[in-house]
Amino acid sequence: MEIKLDENEKIEDLQFKSLKIIQNKKGFCFGIDSILLSDFAKQIKKDSKVIDLGTGTGIIATLLCGKTELKEIIGIEKQKEVYEMAQKSIQLNQLENKFKIIHEDIKNLDKILEKNTFDAIVTNPPYKKKNTGIINEEEKKIISRHETTATLEDFIKVAKDLLKDKGEFYMVHRPDRLVDILSLMRNYKIEPKILRFVYSNEECEPKLILIKGIKNARPFLNVEKNLYIYDKSGNYTQEINEIYHKY
Amino acid sequence: MEIKLDENEKIEDLQFKSLKIIQNKKGFCFGIDSILLSDFAKQIKKDSKVIDLGTGTGIIATLLCGKTELKEIIGIEKQKEVYEMAQKSIQLNQLENKFKIIHEDIKNLDKILEKNTFDAIVTNPPYKKKNTGIINEEEKKIISRHETTATLEDFIKVAKDLLKDKGEFYMVHRPDRLVDILSLMRNYKIEPKILRFVYSNEECEPKLILIKGIKNARPFLNVEKNLYIYDKSGNYTQEINEIYHKY
Repeated sequence: MEIKLDENEKIEDLQFKSLKIIQNKKGFCFGIDSILLSDFAKQIKKDSKVIDLGTGTGIIATLLCGKTELKEIIGIEKQKEVYEMAQKSIQLNQLENKFKIIHEDIKNLDKILEKNTFDAIVTNPPYKKKNTGIINEEEKKIISRHETTATLEDFIKVAKDLLKDKGEFYMVHRPDRLVDILSLMRNYKIEPKILRFVYSNEECEPKLILIKGIKNARPFLNVEKNLYIYDKSGNYTQEINEIYHKY
Repeated sequence: MEIKLDENEKIEDLQFKSLKIIQNKKGFCFGIDSILLSDFAKQIKKDSKVIDLGTGTGIIATLLCGKTELKEIIGIEKQKEVYEMAQKSIQLNQLENKFKIIHEDIKNLDKILEKNTFDAIVTNPPYKKKNTGIINEEEKKIISRHETTATLEDFIKVAKDLLKDKGEFYMVHRPDRLVDILSLMRNYKIEPKILRFVYSNEECEPKLILIKGIKNARPFLNVEKNLYIYDKSGNYTQEINEIYHKY
């Protein structure tokens, strides 16, 4: 099949089950957070119906199609240009039967998708609150990094609406938002069950958090051992090598 | 001064500024959590008025009298036998001018202490929810470890009532209660500002958390680098040696 790339697009080979992803040469590229989240969420069960809220280039959904035996994953993406790139990646990977994308704001899903029907939700939402930190001038990057349109609360509320009872919620985010995340999840009945901190190395403060919640579960949080990206020599740790090997 | 010990009591030398603490030979003895909390809270400012909720033998308050220039610390202790031991420790350390204890349930403080007047609160509350885990048959230990009378929510609510605007709250607790802790603190307007995980060593899951909140502060959580108790050889880490040296 012939996929037409725009001149500002490039194909990234994921070096895993021949999967590829199309990215904007100058736009927001996927990072280790997407790789780690798709590894963290790989326990998604066979035949699951899954939503990826804010799918972007489709990296997480694409990897989950390779890593799990999910039945269907629906990506939601508001930005037209990124949505179109993700559509092309689906064709490139011949994932049309499993991975679909809806070009829509996550806040409008109540008119499109049936509530309480999904087994799992994955999301790598914008990390920064509106009007905080340095605002990048390119709008694509702004929407991907900042809560310009949907807030963290919107993501969690939408997840709660779409998930089945005992459905699973997987998210990657930043430690400085931990109080917001845990409070909002509990308020919206997605009880936080597993929390894992990701560190560049043992000397640093944590850079990312991986969190799993279960809708309507009883409270008990398991804080798992840390995930370190680099060892003391500056090389990838064994765990990261294994994740990249399998990604 | 002659302090009369009961036959089931012993004096522990804290090896820090000649401070000592009286403990029950068979009761709930202070542990590393108290040492770590008093180190974590040592930034309490000069001339502060401080409350120690559930002071027990008085270990945390006693150490804070040595580590900080606080003006006054009031310990609240419900168990009569432990309260009496702590009174004797105060005499032993000649801290009568700084450290006082009230023999009362923390839930009855609204009748005794003036609201919104304290600069800082420290607490090492019971870790386990009522009716969870193994219940120890000795009642003293039960009250110290389990929320048989006051819940985590009671501790946080009382702290919020007693603290001044921008007053500081320091607590040690268990990671599995993190969602409860962060949600309740936010609900009661004690915004979590610093969170630190304590690990036995680098291979384990975290065993304790140290948390600092500020009443009516704006949200932003700083997750500090981990505190490890043992190094790979099984010896205390440098940080723990420094804490013990200064404790």
